Amino acid sequence: MDDEKEPLPTRREVLALAVAGSAGLLVAACTPAPKPVPSLKPTEPTEEGEKMAAGKVLAGAHQVVPLPFDPKKLTGLSEKLLVSHHENNYAGAVKNLNKVEADLAGITKDTPPYLVSGLKERELTFTNSKILHELYFGNLGGDGKAAGDIKKLLEQEYGSFDRWETEFRVVGQGLGGGSGWVILAYNFQTGLVQSYWSGGHTQNVAFGQPLLVMDILDYGAAAGKYIDAFFQNINWAEVDRRLGRAQKAAALLRG
Amino acid sequence: MDDEKEPLPTRREVLALAVAGSAGLLVAACTPAPKPVPSLKPTEPTEEGEKMAAGKVLAGAHQVVPLPFDPKKLTGLSEKLLVSHHENNYAGAVKNLNKVEADLAGITKDTPPYLVSGLKERELTFTNSKILHELYFGNLGGDGKAAGDIKKLLEQEYGSFDRWETEFRVVGQGLGGGSGWVILAYNFQTGLVQSYWSGGHTQNVAFGQPLLVMDILDYGAAAGKYIDAFFQNINWAEVDRRLGRAQKAAALLRG
Amino acid sequence: MDDEKEPLPTRREVLALAVAGSAGLLVAACTPAPKPVPSLKPTEPTEEGEKMAAGKVLAGAHQVVPLPFDPKKLTGLSEKLLVSHHENNYAGAVKNLNKVEADLAGITKDTPPYLVSGLKERELTFTNSKILHELYFGNLGGDGKAAGDIKKLLEQEYGSFDRWETEFRVVGQGLGGGSGWVILAYNFQTGLVQSYWSGGHTQNVAFGQPLLVMDILDYGAAAGKYIDAFFQNINWAEVDRRLGRAQKAAALLRG
Amino acid sequence: MDDEKEPLPTRREVLALAVAGSAGLLVAACTPAPKPVPSLKPTEPTEEGEKMAAGKVLAGAHQVVPLPFDPKKLTGLSEKLLVSHHENNYAGAVKNLNKVEADLAGITKDTPPYLVSGLKERELTFTNSKILHELYFGNLGGDGKAAGDIKKLLEQEYGSFDRWETEFRVVGQGLGGGSGWVILAYNFQTGLVQSYWSGGHTQNVAFGQPLLVMDILDYGAAAGKYIDAFFQNINWAEVDRRLGRAQKAAALLRG
Repeated sequence: MDDEKEPLPTRREVLALAVAGSAGLLVAACTPAPKPVPSLKPTEPTEEGEKMAAGKVLAGAHQVVPLPFDPKKLTGLSEKLLVSHHENNYAGAVKNLNKVEADLAGITKDTPPYLVSGLKERELTFTNSKILHELYFGNLGGDGKAAGDIKKLLEQEYGSFDRWETEFRVVGQGLGGGSGWVILAYNFQTGLVQSYWSGGHTQNVAFGQPLLVMDILDYGAAAGKYIDAFFQNINWAEVDRRLGRAQKAAALLRG
Repeated sequence: MDDEKEPLPTRREVLALAVAGSAGLLVAACTPAPKPVPSLKPTEPTEEGEKMAAGKVLAGAHQVVPLPFDPKKLTGLSEKLLVSHHENNYAGAVKNLNKVEADLAGITKDTPPYLVSGLKERELTFTNSKILHELYFGNLGGDGKAAGDIKKLLEQEYGSFDRWETEFRVVGQGLGGGSGWVILAYNFQTGLVQSYWSGGHTQNVAFGQPLLVMDILDYGAAAGKYIDAFFQNINWAEVDRRLGRAQKAAALLRG
Repeated sequence: MDDEKEPLPTRREVLALAVAGSAGLLVAACTPAPKPVPSLKPTEPTEEGEKMAAGKVLAGAHQVVPLPFDPKKLTGLSEKLLVSHHENNYAGAVKNLNKVEADLAGITKDTPPYLVSGLKERELTFTNSKILHELYFGNLGGDGKAAGDIKKLLEQEYGSFDRWETEFRVVGQGLGGGSGWVILAYNFQTGLVQSYWSGGHTQNVAFGQPLLVMDILDYGAAAGKYIDAFFQNINWAEVDRRLGRAQKAAALLRG
Repeated sequence: MDDEKEPLPTRREVLALAVAGSAGLLVAACTPAPKPVPSLKPTEPTEEGEKMAAGKVLAGAHQVVPLPFDPKKLTGLSEKLLVSHHENNYAGAVKNLNKVEADLAGITKDTPPYLVSGLKERELTFTNSKILHELYFGNLGGDGKAAGDIKKLLEQEYGSFDRWETEFRVVGQGLGGGSGWVILAYNFQTGLVQSYWSGGHTQNVAFGQPLLVMDILDYGAAAGKYIDAFFQNINWAEVDRRLGRAQKAAALLRG
C-alpha cells in the first residue's frame, strides 16, 4: 500500500464508490440521494479535509490473494471445499474489509461511540480473517512431513513433537462445536513458540507472529477427520521459513 | 525464559507447587493425596518423560514486572487506582497464567477437548493480559506531548494527528459500557500503523506489534474523563522507541 | 421493505430524528438536514406511518429505572460506587439502546450486512445491560439472609445451600480479571434453577429467567471482597418472588 | 429431569463413569489411578456429602432428541447436511454437556476460579447449543408460509412482514463470515417480539423465549443461499404455538 503517488481524485472516487455501493444505511438517511454520495465529509473538500478522510489507513484497497496451490491436488480436502472456503469465507472478508474501512473514513468526534465500536469490531474481524486465511492457505499444499528448525524447536519447547501435535489437535477438536482457529505462533514477548486457541477471528496473541494456522469451520464432532486431512497437507517448509523470519526479527522487537 | 541451565529437579518442584497450590480440582481427584503431587505425568518420570511434561512452553514461571513509574506522580490518575490496577488486574493475571500453564502441562490425547478449550482460552486471556498491561504501564508516565517519528507517521497515515486522536478516543468511549483495550499497532502484514478495537484481552490483530495501549476498565459513561487523563500521561518517547523497533523488524517479517 | 405507500414526510422526519439525535455518521451523509428532528415516534405521524417506520420494536423509548433502594444504606457497598454504577454503566446503556434502535429503524435490504451485525450486536449488548442491571439493582437492598422457596430449592438442586453459594462465588472470582455477570436462572427447558457464567452482557442462557444477578466489574484479584459485600445485601424476598413467577410460568412455557 | 426416585447408587455410578471416561486431566493427576475414580469429592462419602456432589443440577443426564422431521423431505437442505448437523453439531454438544456437568460436580471452594470459569463457559455453550438446536430443528419441516398470530404480530411490531424478514435475513448474512444464530424471541421484559443477533451459542437475550431460530454455520458469502432454503422450510405453525405459550406466560413473568 505504498501509494504516495496515487492522484487524489482517484482516491476520492474510490471512496465515493465504496460509500455509494455499500453504505445503504447512510444513503437511506438522505431522502433524495441526488447522485452517488460524494464522501462522508460534511463540508467542502479543502486540501486538508481531503487528506483527513483519505489517509493510507483508510484506503480500503485490499486485494484477494489467489490460492497458492492447486486445489485439485490436496489429500483428503476436496477442491469444492477449498474453493468455496477461499471464495466465500476469505474473499468475502477482504471485500468487507474494504467497505468497512471506507465507512470508518467518515467518522468524526460526533459519531456515536457504539457505532464506531461496531465498525471497529468488524474491521478487526475482517483484518484478521484476511491475515489468518492467507497464512492458512499458505501453509497448505505440502506433504505433511515436519522437518527443519521448526521441528527441532517444537521438540525442545514441548518435550517431543508428538506432545505438541497432541495439544494442537485437541485444541482443534475443542473448537469443533463452533468455529475458530488454532495458531502456532512466535510470541515476541517471551521468545517462545506456542499453540494458541482462537474462538474467532478476533482472538489472537497480542504480540506475535503466526507460524502454522489451522482454520476450524463448523464441523462439530466431525472435526477430527478434517484435522487428520489438514495435517497431511501441511507445508512445513513454509512454516520453517516463517520461523526463520520470526527469529531474526525477535531480537529487534524485544529491544 | 532463558533457562537452559536450570536444573530439572527445580522445575519439577515448581510444577508440583503450582499443581498443589492451585489446581484444587486435580488434587481433589486423588483420594489420599500422599504428598505434593509430583507432576501431571501419568507414568514414571523417565528423563524423556520429564522433558515432555516440562517443555519450556509449559514452565509457568512468568514474573510480575513492577510499575515503571512512580504512581504518585501521574496527572489525573490516582495512586490508588494505578496500584490497584497493577496488583489486582495485572499481577493476578500473571499468577493465573503460571497456574494455567501448569495445568496444561498435564493434558494428554484423552483429555476432553472442551476442558482443553477452556484452559487454552484462559491461557490466551492471561497471556494477553500480561503483554498488554506491561505495554500499557510502559507507555504511561510521560508528559502527553506527541513527538518524533510516531507523530509524523500518524499525521501521514490518518491525514492529521487530530484525526487519529479522535478515532482512538471514540473507540475508547465505545468500550466504556464494558471493558477492553484500544491498541495502536504496527500491522506487519500491511506495514501500516493503525488503531484497533479490543473488546477483551483475547482480541488483537493477528500479526502485529502494539505501540500504544490504553486499558479501558468498567467506567461506563465516565470513560471520557479517564481517557483525558490517559492522554495527559502518555510516554510518547516509549511509543516512538517501539515504532523504531517495529520498523526495523518489519522488512524481515514480511520476508 | 415493501413500503412504497408510506408517506415520505413521516419517514423522513423519523429518520432525521434518528440521525440528528445519534448517528453523526449518518448526518454526514445528508447534505442539508432540514431541521432538528422531532422524534423516533413521539410526534404526530399518520396511522400508517406510525405503524411502519416506528413499529414498537423500533421505538427507542426505553426509560431509566431509578435505584430501588437508598444507596446510602447498603453494607460494604459505597454510595459513590452504587450511584456511579447506576448512572454511568446502566443509564448509559439505556440511552445507547434508544439510539441504536433508532439507527436500526433505517436499515434496508441494501444496508451492508456487517453494519447491521455491528448494530445488532450493540443492540443485544444494551438490551441485556438494561435487563440485567435492573434485576441486579432489584435484588440488592436486602439483609442477605436466604429464606423461602428459593432457599429450599437451592438446597435440593445443589445438595446444600453452601454448595450452591460456593459455586456462585467461585464463578464470580473467575470473572474478576475482566468483567461479567453471574446469574442464577430458571432454565425453562430443563425446569432447573442453575447458576450461569456470563463473560459479558450478551452471554445468557437461551431460554430462562434470571432470579439472582451479580454484576462483576473490573475488580481483578479484589473481586472476593466485593462478592462478600454483595452477599450481605441480597434481597432474597425479591429473588423468591421471581422464583414464584418463574414456576407459575414454567408449565405454560414448556407447552 | 423429574428424578426424585432415582436411587443414589446409580447416580454415583453415573458420575464415576463420567469422570473416569472423560476427565483425563483429572485421572492424570493421580499417579497410580487404582480404579475408576469414585467421585471428585476429597473426603469420605457421607450421606450429606453424597447429596452435595449429586444435586439434580449436576446430573449430566441430558438426552439427544431425534430430528422431528424426515430429513429427506426438506426443500433445498440436503439430508446429508441435516443429518451431519444433527449428529455432529447438536448431539456432540449434548454429550459434552453431560461431561461438563459431571466435572462441575467436583468443584470446591479451592478449585482455581479460572478453571471453574472455563468449565462454566463450556457449560453455557453446550446448554445453549442444546436449547437452540432443538428449537431450530423444531421450527423446520414446514412449508415456509407464515400465518397465524405470529404473522400479525410481526406486521404490527415491524410495520410489515417484509420489513421483519429483511432484517432477519440481513442479520443472518452478516453472521456468514463466522457462525452464529439469528433468533426471533419474545422479550419478557418489554413484551415485544424481536429479532436478536447471536455471534455464538452463548449470546442471547437475558430474559426471553426463542420463537424462531436460524442456525448459521460457516457459509461465508454463500450464506444467502442457505437463508433462502431455511425460509422455505420454516414450520410457522410451531412458531405460532411457541408465541401462544409465550403470551400466556408473559403476564405471569412480568409480575
